[in-house]
Amino acid sequence: MTAPSELDDSFHVFDTTLRDGAQREGINLTVADKLAIARHLDDFGVGFIEGGWPGANPRDTEFFARARQEIDFRHAQLVAFGSTRRAGATAAEDHQVKALLESGAEVITLVAKSHDRHVELALRTTLDENLAMVADTVSHLKAQGRRVFVDCEHFFDGYRANPEYAKSVVRTAAEAGADVVVLCDTNGGMLPAQIQAVVATVLADTGARLGIHAQDDTGCAVANTLAAVDAGATHVQCTANGYGERVGNANLFPVVAALELKYGKKVLPEGRLRETTRISHAIAEVVNLTPSTHQPYVGVSAFAHKAGLHASAIKVDPDLYQHIDPELVGNTMRMLVSDMAGRASIELKGKELGIDLGGDRELVGRVVERVKERELAGYTYEAADASFELLLRAEAEGRPLKYFEVESWRAITEDRPDGSHANEATVKLWAKGERIVATAEGNGPVNALDRSLRVALEKIYPELAKLDLVDYKVRILEGVHGTQSTTRVLISTSDGTGEWATVGVAENVIAASWQALEDAYTYGLLRAGVTPAE
Amino acid sequence: MTAPSELDDSFHVFDTTLRDGAQREGINLTVADKLAIARHLDDFGVGFIEGGWPGANPRDTEFFARARQEIDFRHAQLVAFGSTRRAGATAAEDHQVKALLESGAEVITLVAKSHDRHVELALRTTLDENLAMVADTVSHLKAQGRRVFVDCEHFFDGYRANPEYAKSVVRTAAEAGADVVVLCDTNGGMLPAQIQAVVATVLADTGARLGIHAQDDTGCAVANTLAAVDAGATHVQCTANGYGERVGNANLFPVVAALELKYGKKVLPEGRLRETTRISHAIAEVVNLTPSTHQPYVGVSAFAHKAGLHASAIKVDPDLYQHIDPELVGNTMRMLVSDMAGRASIELKGKELGIDLGGDRELVGRVVERVKERELAGYTYEAADASFELLLRAEAEGRPLKYFEVESWRAITEDRPDGSHANEATVKLWAKGERIVATAEGNGPVNALDRSLRVALEKIYPELAKLDLVDYKVRILEGVHGTQSTTRVLISTSDGTGEWATVGVAENVIAASWQALEDAYTYGLLRAGVTPAE
Repeated sequence: MTAPSELDDSFHVFDTTLRDGAQREGINLTVADKLAIARHLDDFGVGFIEGGWPGANPRDTEFFARARQEIDFRHAQLVAFGSTRRAGATAAEDHQVKALLESGAEVITLVAKSHDRHVELALRTTLDENLAMVADTVSHLKAQGRRVFVDCEHFFDGYRANPEYAKSVVRTAAEAGADVVVLCDTNGGMLPAQIQAVVATVLADTGARLGIHAQDDTGCAVANTLAAVDAGATHVQCTANGYGERVGNANLFPVVAALELKYGKKVLPEGRLRETTRISHAIAEVVNLTPSTHQPYVGVSAFAHKAGLHASAIKVDPDLYQHIDPELVGNTMRMLVSDMAGRASIELKGKELGIDLGGDRELVGRVVERVKERELAGYTYEAADASFELLLRAEAEGRPLKYFEVESWRAITEDRPDGSHANEATVKLWAKGERIVATAEGNGPVNALDRSLRVALEKIYPELAKLDLVDYKVRILEGVHGTQSTTRVLISTSDGTGEWATVGVAENVIAASWQALEDAYTYGLLRAGVTPAE
Repeated sequence: MTAPSELDDSFHVFDTTLRDGAQREGINLTVADKLAIARHLDDFGVGFIEGGWPGANPRDTEFFARARQEIDFRHAQLVAFGSTRRAGATAAEDHQVKALLESGAEVITLVAKSHDRHVELALRTTLDENLAMVADTVSHLKAQGRRVFVDCEHFFDGYRANPEYAKSVVRTAAEAGADVVVLCDTNGGMLPAQIQAVVATVLADTGARLGIHAQDDTGCAVANTLAAVDAGATHVQCTANGYGERVGNANLFPVVAALELKYGKKVLPEGRLRETTRISHAIAEVVNLTPSTHQPYVGVSAFAHKAGLHASAIKVDPDLYQHIDPELVGNTMRMLVSDMAGRASIELKGKELGIDLGGDRELVGRVVERVKERELAGYTYEAADASFELLLRAEAEGRPLKYFEVESWRAITEDRPDGSHANEATVKLWAKGERIVATAEGNGPVNALDRSLRVALEKIYPELAKLDLVDYKVRILEGVHGTQSTTRVLISTSDGTGEWATVGVAENVIAASWQALEDAYTYGLLRAGVTPAE
């Protein structure tokens, strides 16, 4: 279970996605999810992965047991989180402390109170007993051979209320043998200048090795983390994608990217920074949240250029308009197609797709007009490259690419008295001169349509068998009109070697899905090199 | 058009949502949208609203013309954005500069290059001519009686490359009469410590009044803005909800909240800070983006508490766990129902809903179990208070609240050869001892189901006529399986006095929508005080 110490111990990247990140509204992790995330974090190269609170939660107890057996960590050490012992007892006899030892984790983070009011009101004990709890629990765990970090909960609010007491908690923890004392902005109300001043003073006054744990309630968690580093903290606690309670925690990815790219500080193993975007999206997938499109460094929009003004200058030199080369974090520059984009953007986009439009001003003008008109109707080509390419080709060739001609379709969903559902779809279409009628069932109306389209076409276009719908998104436009709104559907399709996105817009979700499906299959056949039927 | 100067001119909150914010991927504003947003921003109380680039864009020209006639600004002054004159011409003859004057805006922001490489590569002129362009354009506009702010594009990158030239642009603008010179981190690559140092130096060296424009590419735009204020900047450029190109701009709401609540600086008219949450969501509505649930201060999760540990302490004193009172920014504290929540959370939630569970430990345990089981199946009660209340009541009363008993339903969507669609739904149900069969058409299958349910029930429950579906959201769970995934539908319903959210989960979107509709109507009848039929 011990990781090879390829990483220098003098600076720690400590991830707490599995413990504090899991507090985010909407996240609900199974043990399998936690194992998958731990693998991604280890792959990314963080030094420590806080796995949960064994003993307090059966799922976390199981996670530690399975992680020990199932994961061969390459970089990270697994950390168990727990609390100082109860008031008036001894650490050696405390069941919660025992569970931490039984988890098998070699590193333990202990949460301790450092705000006098929290000691009195939430913990309901005396200030002195709280110090005794810290000293006793840290020494007990150290005596059992564990490495101990101490999280001083509500430290910054506590420091404001009673700086001497807050510092005495830090001193007590360090003297009892804690390797790092982590100052936590638990309520997230601090700003960088405050963090920097307090960390510098506490460091000078206590001499303890300090860490930082910042919440994002002021929108400054990344900056607060860096401010603490500026003041001498050498241990940063973050969560993947900034997941966490309320607004969230300091986001691991921009913190690490800033340390590596802006501070020139090596905090990940060689070559791992380039995996940032992939790891961020993979973890979002596991927790089942759509990756934030506008997340710094890793968002799909993070290096996307829209303004016509910029687009023409980017042709001269991309570095003029980007703070870093997106490849450093595994992201890519994108030119967006939108009605704000001028001709320069459309030309660049054409080039990106391998279609040279440079010579044909009239064609570019037609494409710009067509995009404007369709975006007005609710289409978005920014997120649907494949549909845009089909539009571009249709304008360039004077007619849309057609592998089949649809006559009509129908979808029926029926709820039966026994509570089960039947979904059936029929399509009528023409392909290679043949009229085909096909019916199929599915687990929903769109799935039934998808299957009936495959049934209709599979003999004529066997290439379709390789295609797989990998994502399906529905967006209701003009949300104030309830179910009478326009519906936009985005579908991602894969053929095993690549993925493409298509868009459909209609007054209802079934019709919009159908359009996106038609584009998805047309584009798939184009990619497969199939010649359209005459 | 001039606003009453209730606000002190010594510090400016300058909003550029309508210009720079509109560069965000996915935003596409009509003139009506821009007018609506301008009204919201004025209502919020910013000092300046940058409306766009008249002359460069017909939509922006129209916006200025209509804003002048249609909006009676109470707080804000409208600002036109444009560029310094072309190289080798005069400002007086420059069409673009003329368009700025013709917009009628009393305040003009001029963008100027301050990075030597941008002058040479993007502007293709000399460093001296660039200075002449700044001086000439500023003096010309000043001579025409306009107030002028100058945005120094790429200032911080430019300062790193050639500090003397960057400063000479600031000096030239100030000497020509610019009221504020705004230092822009256009590529967004800076960190707070860098911003603070550069702003302090430029202020000392030039004596110009300075502003800050920060992009969020490092995740530090709010902190960068505050760092500039710490160093002496007295003009902050922000966008609502941080909208902007790539990752976005400094978010207006956390910047203003920090200035008012953390700095004790009065930057909004009296009483407007309490409108922050409402204005943030209203603007998201206009631009048709779902409000970020995790946005600082205004997100629906910003003061939401999930952890069982916290929940019990919050019963003692909410201030221990919040950095500010959420009411200061018009937000509210929420207790989340989730399988991580313990009994304390369920009890608090019950209290919030006016149902006292305090005395019944066995009932609370049953509710906790039921929530866990349903959330495992994909339900989310965090976002569906009304469905949660129905669940709570069902457990408390031993049976679900039923105003009607559904036998079966069916929805058909048909695409006709002429491209039109027909949607028809039939429901069969029992209410007050009567069997009712009703059929209705709609613009989509869910809408047809909604209508057929209303047709079936409206005679028996006339209260349903007041209910209106105001939002409809579809989420595909386990997105890797395309259209075969589980579907979760969230519906918001209004009766004109309040809004409630309900959830449905099923293998397909129609069946999931049906469940959410059933809960929505049941809850609406409960709110209306209707007694269930025996």
